[in-house]
Amino acid sequence: MKKYVTSARNILHGGDYNPEQWRDTPEVWEEDMRLMRLAGINEATVGVFSWAVLEPEEGKFDFSFLDTVLDKIAANGGKVILATPSGARPRWLAEKYPEVLRTEKNREKNIFGERHNHCLTSPIYREKVRIMDEALAKRYAHHPAVIAWHLSNELNGECHCALCQRAFRQWLQNKYGTLEKLNFTWWTSFWSHNYTSWEQIESPSPRGDMGVHGLNLDWYRFCTDQTISFIETEKQAVQQYNPDIPVTTNLMRGYFGLNYYKIAEHLDFVSWDSYPDWGAPWGNYHEASSIAFDHDTFRSMKKQPFFLMESTPSLVNWKSFNKLKRPGQNALVSLQAVAHGSDSVQYFQWRKGRGSSEKFHGAVVDHYGKEDTRVFREVAALGKTLACLDEIVGTMPEAKVAMIYDYENNFALADAQAFARHDKKYYLTENLIYKHLFERNVAVDVLPREADLSDYAVVIAPMLYLCSQTTIDRFTDFVANGGTLLATYMLGMTDENDLCHLGGFPGGKLKEVFGIWNEEIDSLYPEERVSVSYGGKTYEAMDYCERIHAQGAEVLATYASEFYAGEPAVTCNAYGKGKAYYVACRDTGELMDALIGRILAEKHIVGYAPKTENVSVSMRTDGENEYYFCENHGDTATACSLVGSFTDMETGERVINEVSLPPLTCRILKKDAS
Amino acid sequence: MKKYVTSARNILHGGDYNPEQWRDTPEVWEEDMRLMRLAGINEATVGVFSWAVLEPEEGKFDFSFLDTVLDKIAANGGKVILATPSGARPRWLAEKYPEVLRTEKNREKNIFGERHNHCLTSPIYREKVRIMDEALAKRYAHHPAVIAWHLSNELNGECHCALCQRAFRQWLQNKYGTLEKLNFTWWTSFWSHNYTSWEQIESPSPRGDMGVHGLNLDWYRFCTDQTISFIETEKQAVQQYNPDIPVTTNLMRGYFGLNYYKIAEHLDFVSWDSYPDWGAPWGNYHEASSIAFDHDTFRSMKKQPFFLMESTPSLVNWKSFNKLKRPGQNALVSLQAVAHGSDSVQYFQWRKGRGSSEKFHGAVVDHYGKEDTRVFREVAALGKTLACLDEIVGTMPEAKVAMIYDYENNFALADAQAFARHDKKYYLTENLIYKHLFERNVAVDVLPREADLSDYAVVIAPMLYLCSQTTIDRFTDFVANGGTLLATYMLGMTDENDLCHLGGFPGGKLKEVFGIWNEEIDSLYPEERVSVSYGGKTYEAMDYCERIHAQGAEVLATYASEFYAGEPAVTCNAYGKGKAYYVACRDTGELMDALIGRILAEKHIVGYAPKTENVSVSMRTDGENEYYFCENHGDTATACSLVGSFTDMETGERVINEVSLPPLTCRILKKDAS
Amino acid sequence: MKKYVTSARNILHGGDYNPEQWRDTPEVWEEDMRLMRLAGINEATVGVFSWAVLEPEEGKFDFSFLDTVLDKIAANGGKVILATPSGARPRWLAEKYPEVLRTEKNREKNIFGERHNHCLTSPIYREKVRIMDEALAKRYAHHPAVIAWHLSNELNGECHCALCQRAFRQWLQNKYGTLEKLNFTWWTSFWSHNYTSWEQIESPSPRGDMGVHGLNLDWYRFCTDQTISFIETEKQAVQQYNPDIPVTTNLMRGYFGLNYYKIAEHLDFVSWDSYPDWGAPWGNYHEASSIAFDHDTFRSMKKQPFFLMESTPSLVNWKSFNKLKRPGQNALVSLQAVAHGSDSVQYFQWRKGRGSSEKFHGAVVDHYGKEDTRVFREVAALGKTLACLDEIVGTMPEAKVAMIYDYENNFALADAQAFARHDKKYYLTENLIYKHLFERNVAVDVLPREADLSDYAVVIAPMLYLCSQTTIDRFTDFVANGGTLLATYMLGMTDENDLCHLGGFPGGKLKEVFGIWNEEIDSLYPEERVSVSYGGKTYEAMDYCERIHAQGAEVLATYASEFYAGEPAVTCNAYGKGKAYYVACRDTGELMDALIGRILAEKHIVGYAPKTENVSVSMRTDGENEYYFCENHGDTATACSLVGSFTDMETGERVINEVSLPPLTCRILKKDAS
Repeated sequence: MKKYVTSARNILHGGDYNPEQWRDTPEVWEEDMRLMRLAGINEATVGVFSWAVLEPEEGKFDFSFLDTVLDKIAANGGKVILATPSGARPRWLAEKYPEVLRTEKNREKNIFGERHNHCLTSPIYREKVRIMDEALAKRYAHHPAVIAWHLSNELNGECHCALCQRAFRQWLQNKYGTLEKLNFTWWTSFWSHNYTSWEQIESPSPRGDMGVHGLNLDWYRFCTDQTISFIETEKQAVQQYNPDIPVTTNLMRGYFGLNYYKIAEHLDFVSWDSYPDWGAPWGNYHEASSIAFDHDTFRSMKKQPFFLMESTPSLVNWKSFNKLKRPGQNALVSLQAVAHGSDSVQYFQWRKGRGSSEKFHGAVVDHYGKEDTRVFREVAALGKTLACLDEIVGTMPEAKVAMIYDYENNFALADAQAFARHDKKYYLTENLIYKHLFERNVAVDVLPREADLSDYAVVIAPMLYLCSQTTIDRFTDFVANGGTLLATYMLGMTDENDLCHLGGFPGGKLKEVFGIWNEEIDSLYPEERVSVSYGGKTYEAMDYCERIHAQGAEVLATYASEFYAGEPAVTCNAYGKGKAYYVACRDTGELMDALIGRILAEKHIVGYAPKTENVSVSMRTDGENEYYFCENHGDTATACSLVGSFTDMETGERVINEVSLPPLTCRILKKDAS
Repeated sequence: MKKYVTSARNILHGGDYNPEQWRDTPEVWEEDMRLMRLAGINEATVGVFSWAVLEPEEGKFDFSFLDTVLDKIAANGGKVILATPSGARPRWLAEKYPEVLRTEKNREKNIFGERHNHCLTSPIYREKVRIMDEALAKRYAHHPAVIAWHLSNELNGECHCALCQRAFRQWLQNKYGTLEKLNFTWWTSFWSHNYTSWEQIESPSPRGDMGVHGLNLDWYRFCTDQTISFIETEKQAVQQYNPDIPVTTNLMRGYFGLNYYKIAEHLDFVSWDSYPDWGAPWGNYHEASSIAFDHDTFRSMKKQPFFLMESTPSLVNWKSFNKLKRPGQNALVSLQAVAHGSDSVQYFQWRKGRGSSEKFHGAVVDHYGKEDTRVFREVAALGKTLACLDEIVGTMPEAKVAMIYDYENNFALADAQAFARHDKKYYLTENLIYKHLFERNVAVDVLPREADLSDYAVVIAPMLYLCSQTTIDRFTDFVANGGTLLATYMLGMTDENDLCHLGGFPGGKLKEVFGIWNEEIDSLYPEERVSVSYGGKTYEAMDYCERIHAQGAEVLATYASEFYAGEPAVTCNAYGKGKAYYVACRDTGELMDALIGRILAEKHIVGYAPKTENVSVSMRTDGENEYYFCENHGDTATACSLVGSFTDMETGERVINEVSLPPLTCRILKKDAS
Repeated sequence: MKKYVTSARNILHGGDYNPEQWRDTPEVWEEDMRLMRLAGINEATVGVFSWAVLEPEEGKFDFSFLDTVLDKIAANGGKVILATPSGARPRWLAEKYPEVLRTEKNREKNIFGERHNHCLTSPIYREKVRIMDEALAKRYAHHPAVIAWHLSNELNGECHCALCQRAFRQWLQNKYGTLEKLNFTWWTSFWSHNYTSWEQIESPSPRGDMGVHGLNLDWYRFCTDQTISFIETEKQAVQQYNPDIPVTTNLMRGYFGLNYYKIAEHLDFVSWDSYPDWGAPWGNYHEASSIAFDHDTFRSMKKQPFFLMESTPSLVNWKSFNKLKRPGQNALVSLQAVAHGSDSVQYFQWRKGRGSSEKFHGAVVDHYGKEDTRVFREVAALGKTLACLDEIVGTMPEAKVAMIYDYENNFALADAQAFARHDKKYYLTENLIYKHLFERNVAVDVLPREADLSDYAVVIAPMLYLCSQTTIDRFTDFVANGGTLLATYMLGMTDENDLCHLGGFPGGKLKEVFGIWNEEIDSLYPEERVSVSYGGKTYEAMDYCERIHAQGAEVLATYASEFYAGEPAVTCNAYGKGKAYYVACRDTGELMDALIGRILAEKHIVGYAPKTENVSVSMRTDGENEYYFCENHGDTATACSLVGSFTDMETGERVINEVSLPPLTCRILKKDAS
C-alpha cells in the first residue's frame, strides 16, 4: 500500500542549496556540511540556475564544483535532488542565439534578464538544454547521493515569437483539421473574424485579439502542451543513463495558464513550492485551510505522496509585507504538509546569498553565518521531529469526498466576459467550500472535471462553467451509480471550447440529472444581499443568484427577497441510485455549511475529530497503520477529542480519546493496534 | 409638424440580427421569423460585421445569405436597417494591405483583431469599403424591406500611422496657412517647440508631446473630420442608387474624442446605443435623469426624432457587475427613450451567439432558444404597447430651456492642466444641473456652444471654459434680446484654440454681459467645504470657488467662510433686455437647485407636472396633439397630478388630473382635445 | 564669515521671465519693466528654453531679443540669471540628428516632445549645446546685469540608447577593471547571470533585468556622473570668457535617481525649486517642517547660502488639486526659505503664457495683465520686506545636529526586495524625525553618509541600510571622539554595492560601536502595533520591529508585546568618549520624540525658542550678528518667547523676550548687540 516517490525511506528535510554562489570561499562549503548535520538536514537540491558555472562557454563544461559538492553531501550522509539548469540560461547563449529569448504578448522581444525568459519552442534552446542534461545524467545518474531529478524551475509563462506562432498553428491544425472546424469552434463569424488561411492565426495579444475565448483557451492548452513536450525532452535526456531516478518539477499555486493535471501525468512525482501568508489579518486557521486545499490538490494529481519542494523557514522577501514566521510556526506548517501527503520538508533556501534579488529571502543560514539564531534552532528541532516519522513515508490520506477544481475551467471563467467581470472568485469559492470540510476534519481529494469519480461517495463541483460531454457523462454516471453530487451556479454553461450549450443550462443531460433549468443569472453589486430560506432559517446570498426552475427536483431552499422571491435557490434531485444537489446562489457561507453538513450526514461520512476551534486533524495510512496529525493553528493551548488510543511518535506518550495541543503545534499520533 | 426620419410610420421594435452566425443551421433562421412575430419585432438591423461572409476573398462577393434573410424578413412583415460592414474588416484585407490596420498613440502598429481596428485615412480601406457599399446599394437599395442605411458601427478611436500624419499636416496647413500662425496659436515658443517645417508635426503621443493643448484640440478636430469624410464616402456609395434611403450611424455616450454635433450634420438622422447602469447603488431615478440628458442631447443634434439603435433587453456582459433588468424595467426605460424623442426601440441583440466575446450579452432569444423566458415575454409585451403608439411617430418634445454641452469644451477641459487636474467633472456637472430640470418635468434641449439660441427663454452654460468670439457674440445677443443666461465658474477662459483670453476672465464682452471680473480660482481638496449665503440660508460649496468681482452685477450670494468670505459667489446682471447669472462656485446641489427654481419662476416656465418622487413626465407633440409619458422609476406604486383629461393610449382608460403609476412603469397619455 | 554666492548683495526677488513668448507684442516687454518696478522685482531668470528663438536654424544665431531684454532689465535696475537653453532642444536639431532624442527604459525611442527629452551622452547634443553656450558667454559674460549662469533646467531622467549603453560599459570597466570583480560585486552567480563579455551588459529594463541591485545602483551612479560631465561641459563653455560668473542649476526635491550631493560639488552654488502642498489636509505646520528639511538639505550640500530658484506666488497647475496660497502665505514661506539659508526668493513665473501646458501655473502677472490683483499686491509687499534684509545676505544658520540623508541609500532602499516592499518610507521617516527638531527650534544640517561629522555634537542616521567601510569608519570615529549617534532599524545591512555584510548586522565595527547584534527584522502589516516600554511609559511600534541582542549596550526600552516581548527595542552604548543609540523599531512618533529630547538634554543643545504650537524659529548669523526668523504657520495669532532683545528689521520695532506673531506671518528680528 505504500507509494514511494524516490528511493528515500525517510521524510526528507532539506532544500535549495546554491554553493556556486560561494565558489570563492570554499570554507563556506565546509561550514555548510557542519551546519547541515546540526540542523538535521538530509537533502540538498543542487544545480538550480547553475548553467553559467557548468558551461561557462558554449560546449566547454566544468563540473568540478558539482563533483565536489555532491561528494561532500554524500560523505555527509545526505541525499541530492539534482536540478537541470534550464530555468535560466547563460548570457552567451542568449547573445549567440537570440531566438532563445522570449517574446511578450505585445510582441516585444525581451533582452537577457531575470529567469523564465526563454522560448520553450526554440529548437536551439531545447537542443542546448538536452546537451546539458545529457552531460549531467552521464556524470551523475549513478551518483550515490542522487535520488531524483528536478527539471528546470517553476515553469511558467508564454512566448509569442514567430517560432511559437508556427508551432501554435500546427497544434491547431492537428486539433481541428480544417479551418471550417476552427472557424465554427471559435465562432469567428462574430465581428468578421473568419480565418481563410492558417497563417492568419496569431496568439492572443493586446495589439490584436484578447476576446476570442476559444482562441484564448486553445492558447493555454498549447502552452501547457509546449511545456509538457519541453519536460519530456528534459526527462528523456536525464533518464537515459538511469531510468530509475524519478523526475519532478516544482509547481506553483498562483501561476496562471498551465494545466497542472496534464503536466503531472508526465512527472514521476509531483512537488510544489508553498509560500502562504502566515500572520495575515485573515488569520492562520483560514490560511491553513487554504493551504490544505493546495496540498490536497497537488497530492491528488498523481494520487501518491508529493514533495514540499520549497518553503521558507521564516519570511520571504517579495510580499508587500514580509512578516517573520512565529516561534513554532515553521514546524507546524511543515508538518501540515506531511499530514496532507508530503514526504519532504524543503526550504528555499539553505543559505542567503550576499547580493541580487533574493538575498533577503528567508534561509536556514543567515548572512550572520552561524547556528545561534532562532530560525536555525527551530529548523534543527524540526529535523529531530521528522526523524521520528520514517514509517509514515509512502503512506497516504484516504478521501471519500472529492472536489472538482479544474484548470481549464479556471482559464475559461477568468476569461469570460460576464458575471462579475474582473473576478469571478473561482479559486476563492473552492477554498471557502473546502473549509467546511477542513473544519470537520474530513479528508478531500481535488480532481479535474473529467476524473474518474468511482472511488468517492460525495463530489462537489463549484462553478463548473465549462463541461464537456465527457464531464456530463462522468457526472451522470456518478449520480446514477449512487453518488451524491453537489454543483453550484454557472454549472455547464459551455462545452470544452467555451461554446455555449444550447437548449438551456446546465448543458445536455445535466438538466435531467439535476432536475432543473437555469434561466438566467443575476450578478449583484458587492454590497447587495438577497435572503434565502432553508429549513426554517434565513441565509444571505451575494454576488450571484440564478433564476432556476425545478423540473423534477425537490426545492430545498427558496429566495426570500428580490423579484425572484419564492423561486428555488437550492434543489435536490434523485437520479438513478444517487442524488444531485444544485445551489443556485453564492451565499455568505452558512448555507453552504448547512448543506455540506446535511450531505455528509446522509452519506454517513464522519471527520477524524469533531470541529474544534483552530484545530485540524488529518490522517495518513498504509492501509493498516493510521497516523494522525493534530494541528493547533491558534495562539492558545487547546485539546481535541480523538476516539481511540494512540502513541505520540515524537515523545512516545500515550494519548487516549483526547489530545492536548499547545499553541502553534502539530502532534503526530500513531493509532494503537486494536 | 411631424418629422419622420425614415419611411417607417410606426415605432420600430427590433435590433441587431446576425444570421450569418447560424448559416450552418438554417432552421434557426426559420425559428427567428416565428419568434420575431411572437415578440412583436418589426425591424432587424442586418449586416453589421458581415464583411467576411459577403466578400470571402478579395473581389468575390456572395450575397446569398443577405438575399435570403432580407426576403424572409420582408415576407415576415418586417423592415430592415441595412448596415455597411466597415466596422470590422476581413482577415484577407489586413493580410494583403497592412496599411488598413491602426497605429496606436505610442506608434505601435496593431495586428488583426477586435473591431474598429482600421485606419480611416487609408485610401485602400476607403476604396474597399466603397466597393462593398456600392455592391450592397446596387443590390438592396430598392429592396422593399430596407428603410435605412447603418454606416459602419460605433465609429471611434484614432490612428497615428504615417498616412494619418500626412493627412493631419495637410489639415493643419488648410487651417493655418502659415507656420507662423500655427506657432502663435499653439504657443510653441513655450519650451522651444517652434515648428520650422510642416513635416516636424506629429500627432500627440506619450513618446512625444501630450501637453501642447492647441495640438491636442486640433487633433480631435482632425479625427472628427476624418470620421466625417469616411462617413461621406460611405454615404455617397450607398445613396447613389436610391437617395431616398436615409443614413445613420450608431453614436455612443462615453466615447471621447469625436464632436458628435459636427458628425450629426452629415447623417440623415441620429441614432445611439444606450447602456445605463440600471440597479446601481446610486438609484434608478438618478440614472434615468442622466440618460434623459443623453436622449435630449442626441435629439437636439438634428432637432428631429432619433433612433435608440441599441439597448439590452436584460443585462450586458461587459460591466464590472452585470445585473438583470428588473421585471418591467425594459418597457419603462425603452418608453423613456420614446418619451424623449426616439422613434425606435432596438436591442443588441436578437439572439445570443454561441461563442466569442459577446455571447453573454443580453438578447431577446437566449442560448436556450425558446420563447418561454422572462425576457422574451417582456419584450413581446412591450411590442404590443409600442403597436399602440403609431401616431406618436415623428412628433417632438418642445423645450424653452437649453443647456450648452460642448464636445470641444469637453476635450479642452479634460486636457487642461489646472483645477482638479485629473477630473474636472464636466459631464457630471451637466448631468447634475440637468437633474434639477428633470425633477421639475421641464423639457430641455442640449446644444453646442455656438448654437442658435433664439428659440429659448433660458440657457444654462456650465463650465464653458472654451469660448470663441462667436460664442461670446451668441451669448451677448441672447441676453441683449431678453434671454436669461446662467453660466458658472471657468466661463470664457480660453478661445477656440485654448489660448487664454487676455484682459480678465470671462473673456471679451462676457465681462460686460455678466458684470463681473473673475480674478482667480481656488481648487479645493475633495473633502473641503466653503459656506455660501444666499437668501438668508447657508449652502455648501466644494471643488471650485472663484474670487469674482461684481462690476455692475447684483450680488445674490456671498461666501461665508474662507479668506474670500463676504465676496460674491453668485451674481445677476441686467444686460439689454435680459439677465446674466454667474455662479462662481460648485455647490453640493441645493444652491443650484434654488437658482434654477428662481430663474424658471422669473421666466414663467412650468413643468408638465409637479415634482413627484421617482416620477418623470415628458411630452411629445405634433403641434396639435400632446402625448404625455409618465414614468415611475421607483419600486412602489405612486401617482402624479397632471392638469387636464387624457386617454391612456394602451388601455384606452380615461385619466383626469391625476395618473396612477405602478412601480417601474411608463403610462402614455394622449391629452384630450379641448 | 559671510558666504556670497553671486555678486548680488541683496536678497534677490525675481524669477523665470520668458519674454520670447511675447515677441509679437513688444509693448508687453515695456509693461513688464513697469510692473517689475512696482513689484520690487530685482532679478529675472532669462533664456530657459529659448534655444529655438536664439538659433532658429542650425548655425544661424539671433540674439536680438536677448540683447534688448537684458539691456532693458539693466536699465530697470535689475539683475539677470542667464540660462543656457539646453533643457529643451529645437525641432530642427532632433530632426537632423535623431541621436539627441532619448530612449526609454523599455528601449523605445522617443519622438520630439516635452523637455528633458534628450540623451546627455550624445556627442552631437553636447557639441551643439557647447556652441550655443559659448556664443552666449561670448556675448553676455560681461553684461552688467548678468550675475550667474543657470545651466539647463531641472536636469533629470535617463537615456538607454546605444550610446549610453556603450558609455555605461566603459564606466563599469573603469570602476571594476575586470569582469570577475563585477560578477562578484553584482553577485551574478545568482540565476546564472555571470557576464562573460562587457558587451553583454545592458542598463536595467523591464524587458530584461530590474532586480540586479548592484546593476541598478551602478546605473544611478552612472546617470549621476553623466549629468555631472554634461554640467561640466556647459560650465566650461560659459565660464571661458568670465570665470567670475558662478554657475548653478535648479535642483528638485522629488526627482529620483540623481545624487545631488555629488552634483553640488560641480556647481558654484546650489539652487532649487520648491513646490510644497500648502493647504493640504495634513496641515501647513507639518508641511513647513518637511520643506525646512529640504531647505536644510540643499543648504548643507555646499554649506553656503542657496537660491530658491523657483516657487509659485500662488498656485501651481500640475497637482491633483491646485489650491491658492492664502493671503500672507507667499511672504511667510518665502521668508522661511531665507530663514534656512536662501539668498533669493524667485518665482516660476513672472507672467503667464497664453498657451501650452503651463499657462495656468501661478505667476506674478496674470493673463489679466494688470497690477490690481491680490497676488501682485502680495508679491509687491514682500518685495518691500526683502529690501530690508540686505545685511542678511551671505549669512548662515549654525547647526550642532546633523541628520544623514543619503541619496544612494535612498536608491538602494527603494530598490530592496524586502521589508514593506513597495514603500519603505525613507524620506518620510527622515522628515518625521526632523520634525522633532523643527518643533524644538533646533538647527539641523543634512548630510550624506560619508560626510565629515567633526563639527557636530549629535548625528541622527535613520534607516541607513547601505554603509560602506568609510561610513562605518566615520561613525566609529565620530562616537569615539565624543559624539552622540542615533541610528535605527536597517542600519548597516549592505556595503556600498548592496552586498550584504556578513557576520551579523549592523555590518563590521558598527556592532561594537552600538553594542548590539540585529538578528532579524519583522515587517508588520500596516494596521499592526507592537507595545514598547520606555521609562515607565508604553509606546507603540509599527511597520518594523527588529529582534536585536544587546551585546554590551544598555537596554533603554523593551518590547512589551509579540513573541519578542522583553527583548530590547532601544539601546545605548558607551563607546570611546561618545554614545551610540540604536532604535530597533519604527514607532508612531512619541518614542522617537522622547529619545531626541533625552539626547539634546544630554548634549545641552537648546532650541532658539521653546516649542510653540504652529511656530518655528530659525537663525542666521555672520558669526557676529544674529538674525531670527519667527514664523507662525497657524491661522490664529500667537506669541513666542525669545530670550533677549531684538529689533524688527522691517518695522524697527523693539522686541524683548517675546514676539507676537499674527497668523501666517514671519517676523525677522535682529538681536541687539549685548
